Amino acid sequence: MINVSIAGGTGYTAGELLRILLCHPEVNIESVISTTSAGKRIDSVHRDLLGDTDLIYSDTFKNPDVIFLCLGHGLSREFLENNELPVGCKIIDLGNDFRNQPMFGNKEFVFGLCEQNREEIKKADYVANPGCFATTIMLALLPLASKNLITDEIHIHAITGSTGAGKRPGETTHFSYRDNNISVYKPFTHQHLEEIGNTLTAAGNDKLTQINFVPMRGDFTRGIFASIYTKWNEKLSEEETISFYNEYYADSPFVFVSEKSISLKEVVNTNKCLLHIEFHNGYIHITSITDNLVKGASGQAVQNMNLMFGFDESLGLKLKGSSF
Amino acid sequence: MINVSIAGGTGYTAGELLRILLCHPEVNIESVISTTSAGKRIDSVHRDLLGDTDLIYSDTFKNPDVIFLCLGHGLSREFLENNELPVGCKIIDLGNDFRNQPMFGNKEFVFGLCEQNREEIKKADYVANPGCFATTIMLALLPLASKNLITDEIHIHAITGSTGAGKRPGETTHFSYRDNNISVYKPFTHQHLEEIGNTLTAAGNDKLTQINFVPMRGDFTRGIFASIYTKWNEKLSEEETISFYNEYYADSPFVFVSEKSISLKEVVNTNKCLLHIEFHNGYIHITSITDNLVKGASGQAVQNMNLMFGFDESLGLKLKGSSF
Amino acid sequence: MINVSIAGGTGYTAGELLRILLCHPEVNIESVISTTSAGKRIDSVHRDLLGDTDLIYSDTFKNPDVIFLCLGHGLSREFLENNELPVGCKIIDLGNDFRNQPMFGNKEFVFGLCEQNREEIKKADYVANPGCFATTIMLALLPLASKNLITDEIHIHAITGSTGAGKRPGETTHFSYRDNNISVYKPFTHQHLEEIGNTLTAAGNDKLTQINFVPMRGDFTRGIFASIYTKWNEKLSEEETISFYNEYYADSPFVFVSEKSISLKEVVNTNKCLLHIEFHNGYIHITSITDNLVKGASGQAVQNMNLMFGFDESLGLKLKGSSF
Amino acid sequence: MINVSIAGGTGYTAGELLRILLCHPEVNIESVISTTSAGKRIDSVHRDLLGDTDLIYSDTFKNPDVIFLCLGHGLSREFLENNELPVGCKIIDLGNDFRNQPMFGNKEFVFGLCEQNREEIKKADYVANPGCFATTIMLALLPLASKNLITDEIHIHAITGSTGAGKRPGETTHFSYRDNNISVYKPFTHQHLEEIGNTLTAAGNDKLTQINFVPMRGDFTRGIFASIYTKWNEKLSEEETISFYNEYYADSPFVFVSEKSISLKEVVNTNKCLLHIEFHNGYIHITSITDNLVKGASGQAVQNMNLMFGFDESLGLKLKGSSF
Repeated sequence: MINVSIAGGTGYTAGELLRILLCHPEVNIESVISTTSAGKRIDSVHRDLLGDTDLIYSDTFKNPDVIFLCLGHGLSREFLENNELPVGCKIIDLGNDFRNQPMFGNKEFVFGLCEQNREEIKKADYVANPGCFATTIMLALLPLASKNLITDEIHIHAITGSTGAGKRPGETTHFSYRDNNISVYKPFTHQHLEEIGNTLTAAGNDKLTQINFVPMRGDFTRGIFASIYTKWNEKLSEEETISFYNEYYADSPFVFVSEKSISLKEVVNTNKCLLHIEFHNGYIHITSITDNLVKGASGQAVQNMNLMFGFDESLGLKLKGSSF
Repeated sequence: MINVSIAGGTGYTAGELLRILLCHPEVNIESVISTTSAGKRIDSVHRDLLGDTDLIYSDTFKNPDVIFLCLGHGLSREFLENNELPVGCKIIDLGNDFRNQPMFGNKEFVFGLCEQNREEIKKADYVANPGCFATTIMLALLPLASKNLITDEIHIHAITGSTGAGKRPGETTHFSYRDNNISVYKPFTHQHLEEIGNTLTAAGNDKLTQINFVPMRGDFTRGIFASIYTKWNEKLSEEETISFYNEYYADSPFVFVSEKSISLKEVVNTNKCLLHIEFHNGYIHITSITDNLVKGASGQAVQNMNLMFGFDESLGLKLKGSSF
Repeated sequence: MINVSIAGGTGYTAGELLRILLCHPEVNIESVISTTSAGKRIDSVHRDLLGDTDLIYSDTFKNPDVIFLCLGHGLSREFLENNELPVGCKIIDLGNDFRNQPMFGNKEFVFGLCEQNREEIKKADYVANPGCFATTIMLALLPLASKNLITDEIHIHAITGSTGAGKRPGETTHFSYRDNNISVYKPFTHQHLEEIGNTLTAAGNDKLTQINFVPMRGDFTRGIFASIYTKWNEKLSEEETISFYNEYYADSPFVFVSEKSISLKEVVNTNKCLLHIEFHNGYIHITSITDNLVKGASGQAVQNMNLMFGFDESLGLKLKGSSF
Repeated sequence: MINVSIAGGTGYTAGELLRILLCHPEVNIESVISTTSAGKRIDSVHRDLLGDTDLIYSDTFKNPDVIFLCLGHGLSREFLENNELPVGCKIIDLGNDFRNQPMFGNKEFVFGLCEQNREEIKKADYVANPGCFATTIMLALLPLASKNLITDEIHIHAITGSTGAGKRPGETTHFSYRDNNISVYKPFTHQHLEEIGNTLTAAGNDKLTQINFVPMRGDFTRGIFASIYTKWNEKLSEEETISFYNEYYADSPFVFVSEKSISLKEVVNTNKCLLHIEFHNGYIHITSITDNLVKGASGQAVQNMNLMFGFDESLGLKLKGSSF
């Protein structure tokens, strides 16, 4: 059993982390920190947890073995500057503070894409959990990058559920606006582009070219659906490619290649990423799906925790999908 | 042609009024008032009106023949206290300020339920437009009330779309919360109860008893679906009842009794109210549907305007339903 | 470990049962029977199970300790007539065949509402799993019935998600129809009424009067939201009532009374039932929510299995809710 | 006034045509043909038309000035082979039979993209109404094509509402599947590709290269959202391009360029097409939105009718958008 603390305990990723960790057999949640809700019951904020926990928000941690930072982008550095963690306390950051700039003082954060950096993560004390769009896209392209097979521009459209925008109500998450609607935002300029490019380069694709990424807001709550293509020209045959993908992910308990075309709800409420690959017009076309709050955030964070503490990678992450 | 002004021009009911009035053959929109947006294009706020109008928000009216107050509940009195309207300017209030307390100085507001008060409205200068839940429920019960046939408690569940909660984002209109969700609010205590009771009494039901009304929030944007029953005991036969309803609404261009059971989208984006009547367990059971923004607000307001100015009651209100 | 067979393996309740049982620590799924899909992979039908199982549909069972019948209403008797089960094989029927007529030859089916019949179920070999509407409504009323406190008519509106209508596409489950729509069906005549009445009587309410039940189709996929009221007249004070409910369900791991009003998604993808109680107009008003596929079907079936085999009642049923 | 007949009167496009034509000031609907529903009331099929019409389905036409064919793809030729139309009767085909193969005997069908072929349509007796994806995409690209500015591959993702799949329930239009879901279908191979290519060539783009088109199924009912980009390299400046688009569509009453980014519901239930243009990464990026049943089908068909009969192009097509 390890003692776990969660900082930023009222947001969506913290709620999802709680849903997962409350069933994790090796975890004791020692503290859930919230400056605004300290003293209140956790199920007064995450209402669905009624009956699952009597935990109370605290204003600081006690003596955790690991702390998850669910603070919002840019606030993790601030938290670490203002709070001295116990000696030996590991850190898993769900924000974007350390993904592209991994150093904090002499602490170095490993990029927590388990399928790429499994061995480094096992040895790491500090992990930067990848972004949701980035995870969905990188898992589709990693096998190609590892063989240096991406030689032309990458074309991506990816649609996200509303929970990716967090808990704070706003104009584009207002139900009257969002229901039965669809829109584009930050086309070609989304902040995850840097993370994706770095990762593919680190994976071995040394001549990476332009990534054209159009993110979209979907009228659903959970999940990311990515449609990706890049020039192929028969570098490998169709059969060879699919075999290679299966082989690449053979030891990964959450990534699978589907022979049939996929639809988003096949992964909702699970830690899985499903891929489907076709070949058309001289392109390889890959669709990739994840649940943005699970594999794209809190589930992947627990997967990282499992690796960092020597647990089975999938411990506590065999989740019943909702499917509908 | 009449000159029309709209006060409170940025909210949902004003937007809907604009959508309707821009196609109305006898209306010139002379001003759309907004204290916060004066000087801005109307299509910068109501984005769907791009290409339909070049109107600009103003900070006051000019010389309107009628002004629609779309100000939010409680703010209509304040507006009238602070603004002297031109002599002869009629008023249609979409708020709840004058529904139950009809006097403002020596001005008396007629309750604008066209199907009940058609003749009074034709002569009125000041009209209080009914609430959306109230409209949907009253139209279901008016024929019974007119014959003094409601002799026992009334049981109502009614579900509203999110636009009923207006434009301001909040916790219960946040897409991540509302999508695929349902909840009850203000059970047995909704503010429309007074309006409903007054109307049924005014219609002739002198021994009106308790109204049990459970409002619900639905995960759709437009419309109200009301399910209503009260003791029947064969006061009229099934055939007589349905005949009487058809007769009662024979001159009403927007209320119809359906022989088949009804579903909400049959009226969405129209000014219609559809009713369906069945008899079970000694009860008469009536389902009633409207579009909360049209028949429940801006469409009914235009219907009132048509009556007040001697136009055909349905002028500009033969709207293409969206149906899907 | 027990060996489990599932008959009728392609439908929604079988899929949900598989999602739960694949993670159950004491279950080995020995066979999933489908006459139409025998020989095919299970993940070719329940697509979200890709990566979770390599099971293949079979055309019959082997030697199960328990068989779940997921055959559709009316087909369970037929299955039992045509198939001789191994000696000692227990049966859990998810259809409605044995809920009100519990005898099949000399086999007697216990009504599987765990919170009511826990001790009988522990000793039972044959269990009739309750219906989804019925479960949601009965759990709201059981404490009252157990004290014989229901003395007047019961008024119920309950809204169901589309998965309650099963897998076969039809007019009222067509997305273009159902999305953003709402409708009533079978008002006052739903087939679960008998089950509800029998249960409340069996619980001790000997003077049960009329139950007025209006079922509705909601535009969401999972869950049932029930709004229920009956005359109260201060039989118990508000505090006494809520205390009594808490006490009644103290040993039930899945039923909880919420002090705050509840919304459907608080239970989606869990085996929980949440209740909220208020008092108005001389009525006690109870809202009750479940996931129709979990607590209303397959989850409750596993809960019954746990009791029948002496496992912890909640084994394998601590499910991560989807919440959004 | 002209006499209009509709063949194939029970489907979605016929319903939408009826919703529009019942309010059209120059149209008398003389017959609505259905082999399966002849003799039944039209509002028994299109339930939302209750109160709007007493029309009855017939089994054939009388003496129409124009007939709309709403028969499903491939069935228009069959209908014309089996039915001799009155002399002088014009034809507007909403199927795909004559879009790419315009000859039927000696009748030549003009491609009914009003913004491209306005003058030809005015003189035409036979018009092939464009497809919904095609319309949305072509209107985004026509100005570029007219200047021969498309010199590299075109990249398109476009998401359609469920009504595009028609009235017949099926696996991918089942609410339990479709709600909160998203998926790709026919990537790179959709049948509208030929129509799009032909049109752009006809518009003047003589060196048209590959069109990469990934269609997607959205979880909404109405509308198409297309995201399109192609290499730009400063052929025109940003300002010049937007000016040119505005100029190109200056005489088109339904196509507008938005300075702000657009969301699908801005056009739902209207005959409009909104475009938004940005420049990134050496690409011109165009988003384009229409309502698939209106501008993408029945609205455009009426727009064609207006042109063919010398009416104002927008007569009867100033529709109130639903916006929410």
